[in-house]
Amino acid sequence: MKTIDLNCDLGESFGAYTLGMDSQVIPHISSANIACGFHAGDPLVMQNTVALCKQHGVAVGAHPGLPDLVGFGRRNMAITPQEAKAAVMYQIGALQAFCKAADVPLRHVKPHGALYNMAAKDAALAKAICEGIREIDAKLILLALSGSAMITAAKEMGLSCASEVFADRAYMPDGTLVPRSSPDAMIQDDQLAITRTVQMAVHGKVTALDGIDIAIEADSVCVHGDNAQALTFVRHIRTALETAKVRISAL
Amino acid sequence: MKTIDLNCDLGESFGAYTLGMDSQVIPHISSANIACGFHAGDPLVMQNTVALCKQHGVAVGAHPGLPDLVGFGRRNMAITPQEAKAAVMYQIGALQAFCKAADVPLRHVKPHGALYNMAAKDAALAKAICEGIREIDAKLILLALSGSAMITAAKEMGLSCASEVFADRAYMPDGTLVPRSSPDAMIQDDQLAITRTVQMAVHGKVTALDGIDIAIEADSVCVHGDNAQALTFVRHIRTALETAKVRISAL
Amino acid sequence: MKTIDLNCDLGESFGAYTLGMDSQVIPHISSANIACGFHAGDPLVMQNTVALCKQHGVAVGAHPGLPDLVGFGRRNMAITPQEAKAAVMYQIGALQAFCKAADVPLRHVKPHGALYNMAAKDAALAKAICEGIREIDAKLILLALSGSAMITAAKEMGLSCASEVFADRAYMPDGTLVPRSSPDAMIQDDQLAITRTVQMAVHGKVTALDGIDIAIEADSVCVHGDNAQALTFVRHIRTALETAKVRISAL
Amino acid sequence: MKTIDLNCDLGESFGAYTLGMDSQVIPHISSANIACGFHAGDPLVMQNTVALCKQHGVAVGAHPGLPDLVGFGRRNMAITPQEAKAAVMYQIGALQAFCKAADVPLRHVKPHGALYNMAAKDAALAKAICEGIREIDAKLILLALSGSAMITAAKEMGLSCASEVFADRAYMPDGTLVPRSSPDAMIQDDQLAITRTVQMAVHGKVTALDGIDIAIEADSVCVHGDNAQALTFVRHIRTALETAKVRISAL
Repeated sequence: MKTIDLNCDLGESFGAYTLGMDSQVIPHISSANIACGFHAGDPLVMQNTVALCKQHGVAVGAHPGLPDLVGFGRRNMAITPQEAKAAVMYQIGALQAFCKAADVPLRHVKPHGALYNMAAKDAALAKAICEGIREIDAKLILLALSGSAMITAAKEMGLSCASEVFADRAYMPDGTLVPRSSPDAMIQDDQLAITRTVQMAVHGKVTALDGIDIAIEADSVCVHGDNAQALTFVRHIRTALETAKVRISAL
Repeated sequence: MKTIDLNCDLGESFGAYTLGMDSQVIPHISSANIACGFHAGDPLVMQNTVALCKQHGVAVGAHPGLPDLVGFGRRNMAITPQEAKAAVMYQIGALQAFCKAADVPLRHVKPHGALYNMAAKDAALAKAICEGIREIDAKLILLALSGSAMITAAKEMGLSCASEVFADRAYMPDGTLVPRSSPDAMIQDDQLAITRTVQMAVHGKVTALDGIDIAIEADSVCVHGDNAQALTFVRHIRTALETAKVRISAL
Repeated sequence: MKTIDLNCDLGESFGAYTLGMDSQVIPHISSANIACGFHAGDPLVMQNTVALCKQHGVAVGAHPGLPDLVGFGRRNMAITPQEAKAAVMYQIGALQAFCKAADVPLRHVKPHGALYNMAAKDAALAKAICEGIREIDAKLILLALSGSAMITAAKEMGLSCASEVFADRAYMPDGTLVPRSSPDAMIQDDQLAITRTVQMAVHGKVTALDGIDIAIEADSVCVHGDNAQALTFVRHIRTALETAKVRISAL
Repeated sequence: MKTIDLNCDLGESFGAYTLGMDSQVIPHISSANIACGFHAGDPLVMQNTVALCKQHGVAVGAHPGLPDLVGFGRRNMAITPQEAKAAVMYQIGALQAFCKAADVPLRHVKPHGALYNMAAKDAALAKAICEGIREIDAKLILLALSGSAMITAAKEMGLSCASEVFADRAYMPDGTLVPRSSPDAMIQDDQLAITRTVQMAVHGKVTALDGIDIAIEADSVCVHGDNAQALTFVRHIRTALETAKVRISAL
């Protein structure tokens, strides 16, 4: 039986600011990527989000980002591999404290935003981040863009990794994402997005922009929980996967 | 044979800013309290300071502070016990990541600055911080002001703790520190400060402001390493303790 | 004809975080207090909020806070008068840049949150903040708690000031607010809150906790715009004031 | 008689962290670029630095940087032109508050670090920054890299500008700086650096890397004041310029 993980970014609130509908999306996912205070999240939010994950039996992962709170970690920064490694280690450790206190294992690490995107293409950055993860705990799983330099770096150093795919993004013939700057970047039709996700989960294939199917590793699908429409989409994708006999399961 | 710990706050540099003469003071101490990024320190500084401690066989402790970088964590803040607990846990975890990577145990936790002072007097804050430490690792040792609410809280919940004394501070007849606002707060004469430290280490006594000796628990002496005079003082205090057959040893 | 100002805290969003229903409340108020980046707000939010005020003909004020983003400036901090003065000047200046660019005058300054509350009781802090305002522009108006040390300090140094009252808060017989820790702190009944506001605006009196009417200076009423209920309340208070022949007008 | 400005970055301390020998270098320069709190500096440091400039009759300029304190504003960030414009306006305004209070005019604006370098090459970023400056005060002078996109943008929109040159940097035949990654980037010989500076000031020429003299606009020379060697260099460059009958004068 095929299995796939449904992951969602949680714990993105900060102080007086609330972001995301964490308690509503969490019953539908298998893994949570929890923000660690650099691009979003604060100590109390992290503590509460770990408790929420424990309550729903959802696997906990760290979601470290760039030190850019006002930019939500979405702006590329010319950070060195050494800086990125240390920043990722710091954030993973911070989240681990709350995991230990709650007696919940930290299962995976998924870099956030611009760090995710930069490391997907930059081998030196990818290697440094993977080293940071492995030096803390060699059993942690890297969750990163399918086909990216991150996945390559993890495999080369023997770090467990999981390939992430996107239901609502178009893919190039070489397996990379169609850039957001392109009008074709997004899959606008929800039903098509769900069909593509099932295709990736069951057959390990996705129809690229040129109409030809390509192979794609799909261990985890990223879903969102920041508005009512996103919640509906998550429920539908979950139903569609279960109908296709795909088991939803954490990494 | 009597033993005492010599502790010093290290890793207080931040980005382009250098503070402290860490590499020069470290050969003379037995324990380091490493800043964790809230009041001072950054991920790279933390990583480098852990490496420096490992190299010199100095015990590593976390030095969590208030989220007040511009105030260096020295300004009291009306933080709730829950906020303090989560902030301390976050910072301990962040440092633990670098300890694990360096294969160095994290030995103790000493709250910094205003957090140290507030928790010395506030039982609820003290209890929350001790709970945070214990929930992460029940073998961690709290290092806090001798005779303070922090020590009381730790003892009540069975958390290991060590009592810190100050060579250069005067004590009230009830064992509390003479407030800095008083002209008598500081012991200005270095030789007297050293004699008092030896007295505390060997006899567990200190001469209070009224001239009468009082009992004081003295597991660790706080020393400074931020200028040439401070370094000289550390060397002298170490020599005086060794002459008095007191062994310098980590907690 | 009696006049009163209706003021509301705006521009409290930050980066990806949205807070407040600024565009919906602004048609109903006469003055906006715009957050300046320390406790809330960021440069783009400030720029956009000034533009929104200009569009609706609402008077612009600075709303400087403590450097405590995660605490939303609501936690007391042991900041010195010198630090408070410099922090307030910095934030006023930053907002003035956007006012100048938009050709909108900066009319008033209302300290935020814990800074507002601390300065209401601390004469030295109040004086330092008033000096900071006056040194930038002697024509700026201080907006602060009616009967507070802030108002006293402003009057003593000849700085224009306006006294703020609260529709939903109970008052002690001496004119101070009933502390939030008391069960009687809030006026729960919206209709009563509105009646009291009209009484303050028209007669300069409010019924204190002991049932006896006391005199109160009421130049401006603070209203909120962070949820649907708050918006309804603002509309109702505005209607009630107009019915009572009170003109709503900026300071 | 030829004139040139000697500018130096000042006010880069932050909280407990001291950086630069401001009081020692200031007697030798004609313009100060004061950090505005994003990459360095804090409100009290800004206030004190403006006072120091006033005392020595040195022209005050704003030195706005990227929101990257831990990176000292030296790391490129993918900031949009709109974000850059608002960030620059915010910082200029903040410094203006202290200038107004001290009755000192704000004379110029020099972007800092990565923002300076990015805007030197990016026309859209350069234009946005120049617009931000002009919208605050059309009499402000932009100080930017000689021959850069910043200077072009300022000239196109009629904003006053001054071209900055470097004593210790080598130039390409097209007038751009030899990249720091090249072994030839720095002029190591102090005497040669001084000779080149005099040549730029007197003749408007500099010998490029290929040995051929090129024309260069040189309105201001950047000097440093962060160590004893730098101070000596400033004194020597000043003497050499005066000997060559070049008058040192603010923009």
